[in-house]
Amino acid sequence: MPHCTGFGTDKPGSQAAHRGMKAEGGWAAVCTEYAPVSADSDESPYVSAQLLDGGDLANLALMTEAAHEHGALAGIELTHTGGHAERRQSRWPGIAPSQLASDYEPFIVPKAMELEDIRRVQGDWARAAREAASAGFDIVYVYGGHSYLLTQFLSPFYNKRSDAYGGPLENRARMWLETLEAVREAVADECAVAVRIGVDLTPGLDVNEALEFIRLADHLVDLWDVNVGSIAEWSKDSGSSRFFPEGYQLEWTGRVREATQKPIVGVGRFTSPDTMAEVVRSGALDLIGAARPSIADPFLPRKIEEGRYGEIRECIGCNVCIAKSEDGHHLGCTQNATAGEEYRRGWHPERFQRATNANRDVLVVGAGPAGLECAIVLGKRGFRRVHLVEAEGEIGGLMRWVAQLPGLGEWARIVNWRRVQLDRLRNVEVLTGTRLDAKAVREYGAEIVICATGAHWAENGLNAITHQPISGADATLPHVLTPEQVMLDGKRPPGQRVVVYDGEGYFTAAGIAELLALESYRVEFVTCLEQVAPVCDETL
Amino acid sequence: MPHCTGFGTDKPGSQAAHRGMKAEGGWAAVCTEYAPVSADSDESPYVSAQLLDGGDLANLALMTEAAHEHGALAGIELTHTGGHAERRQSRWPGIAPSQLASDYEPFIVPKAMELEDIRRVQGDWARAAREAASAGFDIVYVYGGHSYLLTQFLSPFYNKRSDAYGGPLENRARMWLETLEAVREAVADECAVAVRIGVDLTPGLDVNEALEFIRLADHLVDLWDVNVGSIAEWSKDSGSSRFFPEGYQLEWTGRVREATQKPIVGVGRFTSPDTMAEVVRSGALDLIGAARPSIADPFLPRKIEEGRYGEIRECIGCNVCIAKSEDGHHLGCTQNATAGEEYRRGWHPERFQRATNANRDVLVVGAGPAGLECAIVLGKRGFRRVHLVEAEGEIGGLMRWVAQLPGLGEWARIVNWRRVQLDRLRNVEVLTGTRLDAKAVREYGAEIVICATGAHWAENGLNAITHQPISGADATLPHVLTPEQVMLDGKRPPGQRVVVYDGEGYFTAAGIAELLALESYRVEFVTCLEQVAPVCDETL
Repeated sequence: MPHCTGFGTDKPGSQAAHRGMKAEGGWAAVCTEYAPVSADSDESPYVSAQLLDGGDLANLALMTEAAHEHGALAGIELTHTGGHAERRQSRWPGIAPSQLASDYEPFIVPKAMELEDIRRVQGDWARAAREAASAGFDIVYVYGGHSYLLTQFLSPFYNKRSDAYGGPLENRARMWLETLEAVREAVADECAVAVRIGVDLTPGLDVNEALEFIRLADHLVDLWDVNVGSIAEWSKDSGSSRFFPEGYQLEWTGRVREATQKPIVGVGRFTSPDTMAEVVRSGALDLIGAARPSIADPFLPRKIEEGRYGEIRECIGCNVCIAKSEDGHHLGCTQNATAGEEYRRGWHPERFQRATNANRDVLVVGAGPAGLECAIVLGKRGFRRVHLVEAEGEIGGLMRWVAQLPGLGEWARIVNWRRVQLDRLRNVEVLTGTRLDAKAVREYGAEIVICATGAHWAENGLNAITHQPISGADATLPHVLTPEQVMLDGKRPPGQRVVVYDGEGYFTAAGIAELLALESYRVEFVTCLEQVAPVCDETL
Repeated sequence: MPHCTGFGTDKPGSQAAHRGMKAEGGWAAVCTEYAPVSADSDESPYVSAQLLDGGDLANLALMTEAAHEHGALAGIELTHTGGHAERRQSRWPGIAPSQLASDYEPFIVPKAMELEDIRRVQGDWARAAREAASAGFDIVYVYGGHSYLLTQFLSPFYNKRSDAYGGPLENRARMWLETLEAVREAVADECAVAVRIGVDLTPGLDVNEALEFIRLADHLVDLWDVNVGSIAEWSKDSGSSRFFPEGYQLEWTGRVREATQKPIVGVGRFTSPDTMAEVVRSGALDLIGAARPSIADPFLPRKIEEGRYGEIRECIGCNVCIAKSEDGHHLGCTQNATAGEEYRRGWHPERFQRATNANRDVLVVGAGPAGLECAIVLGKRGFRRVHLVEAEGEIGGLMRWVAQLPGLGEWARIVNWRRVQLDRLRNVEVLTGTRLDAKAVREYGAEIVICATGAHWAENGLNAITHQPISGADATLPHVLTPEQVMLDGKRPPGQRVVVYDGEGYFTAAGIAELLALESYRVEFVTCLEQVAPVCDETL
């Protein structure tokens, strides 16, 4: 599936290596993230794979080579985001079907497109498709999902036009159909033409109208890529495991079959091989699309093919990949430490080179997520002996209790996958229930020592704003609780009014609050530390 | 002055051309923005002029060439941001004097630096300084303003160490002093060594302690660059004209003279030549630093030198430069349309090429900010006749009334500067009080017509969230007012309770509210449009 990375055309090496790794892992096709075709769809300050000129093309061509090297198809998600584009670098005027403020970023008020603008964008799309074909792309998108320009034409929420491009559905569909025709003509038989469409939960567009559009366009499309939601209704697009079960989009995307003769690919957090097989067998989809699961394990298809199900590094749906791509401009993954580092660090999720100092003994202190990953990687790099020593009776660190928070059960995979790996590594020994102090570490006899002992909640209100403890925010008091006290020590508040103090960890506080609420406490939680001081006093 | 641009080392051409333009305009020295020396000060997702490797150096060297070409000195603001750095791309662990969450971004909890980290950062600084010298930089900074790493050591708010780098002032100053020594040794007599320090309004640091530090470090410093505020207390660093008068920082920076034998440069929105001369004559500063005023008019020094005071494009202090540099990653300016476009569009604020179609007559409809700028540029590009036609009795468009909002008086310079320019252009004619409809425009006889008729507030509550008018938000009702009705028509609310409806224009609403409050109305203003519906009904 197309998905953001923070690489776009800005980091061509990272882009090519990341997609290439999936190709190597057996995915049949890999794709860029959204790739605007016009300067009035400049996505800055976000990072996109724009295709505006020969420089962009040269950068993107690296990715088609990486995909083809491993026998995968390469796709490019050509698009125009219309009334949502911020255009902070190009500074072109914004365009959309009608002059209406964007529901995604209300400061953007695009101009209503004139016929000349419509023709220009269609021309840009055809030009970009032709260039993409010349760079070796096998699949070109006419991407209108996420309530981008083509959906803006299709949806009466965005489209208030009174000309041939507004009004009844066949008019609102015109922009998309004409663009499809232009792109088909541009790439002829060189490329497959794919469409991504959000089939429901886009303002002004429900599944019935989407199906009608799919019927109208079916003869122009080689592959339907279907999902739900819009850019302003983002949570539904990439629902986290906390709130959305595996395959949650099928409620809507499962209906697409009735409107098309063409193959359908869909997403919605398909993480387990069993679910994938079941969905294809059911006939709902022909192809399984994966963004997050392919980041967590680029080798998922190959592992299925070889029957190595237990080795699949299954996505936990935490959405750190999205946060890092969007806000930090560099993809990362909680489950797969190599994701996004394939190029600049040369990391591979499955192949590990023997370390030059592998004849050493290593002591890793602490078997939380970091210590676990460290011991496994050192084991795979062939160190003579790796001792992973944990003070508690079980491995996992904070993941032993975080995964017990409401909705976070899938996060336990972080520990489970690593437990399986550790069992297979003869050179790694795990010792639990063994607390080492500095003296014991020195006397342990290891030539390399790695400290991965983690962090704990401050129990005195030490905070970012004052850099001092907060008087009254004292976790030895019965009415002040840290998440660890609640989850590990079973501490419970004495009354009906509770302050769950956890610094800035909003989501943990929310989970704790939910958990306590289930036990019938009235809960009030505090995320702004300045509010803590007046609340946390003895009168509570 | 060092200032952010969004160019950093990412857009070396824009960086070099922008600073080079100031050099051409007569500024004695130009400087990069903050330039981190270590990967644990990776500033992403912000854009900095990092100096980590030879690639960075090659990019930055373009700027020294551009500065030297016009006889200016080139400076580089070497720094480490310590506990504030987000490091979203490098992913190195954060470091700071003590393990305390950043007051700027509380999710960042850096590790307390070990002696090894201290030596490494000092070594990086010396290495970067040496490289900068080799690339032709004349001034290297040991920059500790904005509560960055060196100030974090100096301030007991950030520094809770118990070793030789914590405790009494001479210990807290040690990191900075040692870094200065290392940099001086690295660049010997090749470069001047400058220090920027926020002398007050940094947590834990007031002007008296800052002066003590300046005394301690004076023998190691060639130039003191002084300002106030921290990165978490940002509003004081670059105070907007709305809230801060010209030279507002002198209250604190004016005291630095008592602690140093070295030259002092300072900032704080010095926009007029008279103020600049007065400040230097008073002895408070030796050199006038300018970030915003040099963006608004790169040629300010040359115009002073040549006595062309009336031609100075004086900064209005709107801070759009900062918003565009930070959030959009590409500098821009309300007063100077060429700012940030020197490289990629080849725009020059003072030199205009004759247009190839200059033998045409042009009609510009609308003399607001856009129409004014357009007519002036076309006039300077030598068009035969430019007619600027305005429906109202005066030029200025919305700037006629926006500048009357509380605190926005300096924004009138947008119109005033352009009025002076228009008076000098023989080929531009201004017609006010002339409203043209489409027929009149067609019949006007111009070969080129430019429409710059601007925008008006919706009077029916049309909004981004519903894309529909809001029932009750009807500006023909006595208790519903648009800013234009208040400011241009003198409409006043009938009672004590007022909803100032202005879509998402928070600052305009605030200004209007303030204005009305001065006239003793009780004011409630609405920025979230979802709130408008229940409020704007007849019962109000």
